[in-house]
Amino acid sequence: MEDQPRLQIIGILHGDILSRAEAPKNYDESERIGILEINPQYQEALDGIEAGQTIVVLFWLHKSDRDVLKVYPRGDRSRRLRGVFATRSPARPNPIAVSELKVLAVNGNRLEVLGLDILDKTPIIDIKKKIS
Amino acid sequence: MEDQPRLQIIGILHGDILSRAEAPKNYDESERIGILEINPQYQEALDGIEAGQTIVVLFWLHKSDRDVLKVYPRGDRSRRLRGVFATRSPARPNPIAVSELKVLAVNGNRLEVLGLDILDKTPIIDIKKKIS
Repeated sequence: MEDQPRLQIIGILHGDILSRAEAPKNYDESERIGILEINPQYQEALDGIEAGQTIVVLFWLHKSDRDVLKVYPRGDRSRRLRGVFATRSPARPNPIAVSELKVLAVNGNRLEVLGLDILDKTPIIDIKKKIS
Repeated sequence: MEDQPRLQIIGILHGDILSRAEAPKNYDESERIGILEINPQYQEALDGIEAGQTIVVLFWLHKSDRDVLKVYPRGDRSRRLRGVFATRSPARPNPIAVSELKVLAVNGNRLEVLGLDILDKTPIIDIKKKIS
């Protein structure tokens, strides 16, 4: 195995969240709609995804700080530093976000989804079926 | 942003699942116990993780085929080829598994966890708080 495996970017998010201050704290609190645009070379991997399903989407948070190991968690009133692995902070060694999103429509390589807490133009690295 | 971001391996799983045939289909069906051994350089990022919590753990499935876009999903009786993004197959462009595991004990840089469906010696790439 490579020491530092390389990720393939499979697509990009088009949304209306332009800064972290505008972002909902988590996907479970969001009513934001956006488009997952998947690179055409991966389009056939979408076969079987349908409107009405909830999918698990992994994003690469390319603007995050990868060197921070402790943070003050957002919305935590205790004001106590915590290890990033005990939080959902975007700052972490591998800044991957895991979101559960509802599929509103599928148009070729574009999925319209509901529930975003992720910045516009964030790279997408994986999509999975949700465990029902 | 890099075209192909590089992952940092933050630790390794020690478990008793030695082949895919032995693996439970998903973490929600597993009673397997194992140890997440985190590299000492990342140990302080664990601060705040305690026994009794459920954590979200991301693994890099280093033995997976990254070039497959369609699979016959395991346990699917329809025998229909599906896009990997519509499944939880380990084969996918970025073979990242997302597991929810219960923390049984924390000993320094070692977390004892319950619920594994992942092969022994699989690299760990992230740990997050579960959205409650």
